[in-house]
Amino acid sequence: MRASAFVPGHITGFFRPMENEEPLRSGSMGSGVVINKGVYTNISLREADETSLEIYFNGDKGEHPVSGFAAKEVLRLAGARYKVEVYHESEVPISQGFGASAAGALGTAMALGRALGLPLTMNKCGEIAHRAEIANKTGMGDVIAECRGGLVVRLAPGAPGIGIVDRIPCDFAIVAWIVGPPIETKTLLKDDEKKKQIASLGEKAVEALLKHPDPESFMRISRKFAMDSGLMSEPVRSAVKALEEKHISASMIMLGNSVFALTRDPEALRDVLQYPMIVAEIDHLGGRLI
Amino acid sequence: MRASAFVPGHITGFFRPMENEEPLRSGSMGSGVVINKGVYTNISLREADETSLEIYFNGDKGEHPVSGFAAKEVLRLAGARYKVEVYHESEVPISQGFGASAAGALGTAMALGRALGLPLTMNKCGEIAHRAEIANKTGMGDVIAECRGGLVVRLAPGAPGIGIVDRIPCDFAIVAWIVGPPIETKTLLKDDEKKKQIASLGEKAVEALLKHPDPESFMRISRKFAMDSGLMSEPVRSAVKALEEKHISASMIMLGNSVFALTRDPEALRDVLQYPMIVAEIDHLGGRLI
Repeated sequence: MRASAFVPGHITGFFRPMENEEPLRSGSMGSGVVINKGVYTNISLREADETSLEIYFNGDKGEHPVSGFAAKEVLRLAGARYKVEVYHESEVPISQGFGASAAGALGTAMALGRALGLPLTMNKCGEIAHRAEIANKTGMGDVIAECRGGLVVRLAPGAPGIGIVDRIPCDFAIVAWIVGPPIETKTLLKDDEKKKQIASLGEKAVEALLKHPDPESFMRISRKFAMDSGLMSEPVRSAVKALEEKHISASMIMLGNSVFALTRDPEALRDVLQYPMIVAEIDHLGGRLI
Repeated sequence: MRASAFVPGHITGFFRPMENEEPLRSGSMGSGVVINKGVYTNISLREADETSLEIYFNGDKGEHPVSGFAAKEVLRLAGARYKVEVYHESEVPISQGFGASAAGALGTAMALGRALGLPLTMNKCGEIAHRAEIANKTGMGDVIAECRGGLVVRLAPGAPGIGIVDRIPCDFAIVAWIVGPPIETKTLLKDDEKKKQIASLGEKAVEALLKHPDPESFMRISRKFAMDSGLMSEPVRSAVKALEEKHISASMIMLGNSVFALTRDPEALRDVLQYPMIVAEIDHLGGRLI
């Protein structure tokens, strides 16, 4: 049996980590934009004597623990044993703040559920993917945003159906640049003092955005959060500065060595920075079977 | 200034009324499908000495109190006085269970907010439209569904951001027939005994759907709810029976003199019933500015 899903990527502008003993209530508040570049997941499976699982990410066979977690959770719900192959084809880089791990996990839950004939609701798939992210410390709010689509404000943390989101109407295009090597989310957020400071800045950022919820404020507040939080690497800081000199409001993609801007004319930004560039529209649909 | 919105219609299969003193928490649980036929709302406004409001529904100028409620709420947030014209062009009939009043109110909140330059989030627009529905007793769960899109299960009542929804993956087309005159929602739900019985049936229906959340179960459970609730008029009962005789699983649209079926081949149903027919796809986007 075969099934496929597409899950859009998600660029976080700012966030407030909110840990909870219960993984489904753990996560973050914050805001980010869901983009129409993401992860395609194709599942191929057949019944077998023993359950086995192979996961490929852009052709690279590996452990891929976030998708692996999601696949194992779905397989536990199945009544028989299967040889399962999961193929991710990603349009966005990993460990650069595009929510690729969440998109892979959510796509795995949706497509594997479909291939197995399990009637999983979107929230159920979202819960599985959210727990996969929390368990692996790879993300805290990408799944609920990628389930919804749009310029998302996360008002309360948690998995879809538990966390609360709002949306800000937005039809800008998104341009992103990858300006340095990948970053592991968990390495940046292990210092308790740092986490407290980011939590305080993130809380203020959400409050500020809700006072004036429009795309321009989202960019301005994201940028302030990035500056004040000390999360920007040197290449990110230089790129944001270079863009500012050209009157382009940009900020860091949380958490990556990458920056983004909202624009009505992505072509005009093509030669502004000499880094790999990703151009996307906003995805308003959220993850779906295809 | 001008602005426009499209809000999809919503066909309810079954529901459990859940009233609350607080309008934003009032509403219903239940399930229904959001369709790509709905209400286009065009706003035209200019500053004036006195605020005035004219509302047209398919060319018919009238009080249109649900959209009127929404428009007045948005105008209260504006800093000046305006002459406002609201034009609704609806692809679905009113008072036939398509959530047209909710779609008109939500479209009014979104487009009027945009025309006035107010930064309203989607939840804020949804709250205004939901309160407009509750105040006029015209609907109890259409707004939150029409904000989301898809085959929606309403797990907790209320406005967007307060009520909780889930979605069942579904790519069927929807065919609906109008088999009798319009029904006012509030006339059907004023008897307390009846309401209690419907609440009990609606609760069981939601539980049954969550045990096996797929489109076929949604149809089967909707049909059982329609039969057991005694809400079907004679023309609805006859139409459902006529479709059943042709092996087409159909049910009543809550609350209208109308019936619906999910199908992969809408053309095959074209001559099955001699009533006005509406063919639609599922809308997965929800209400949006256009």
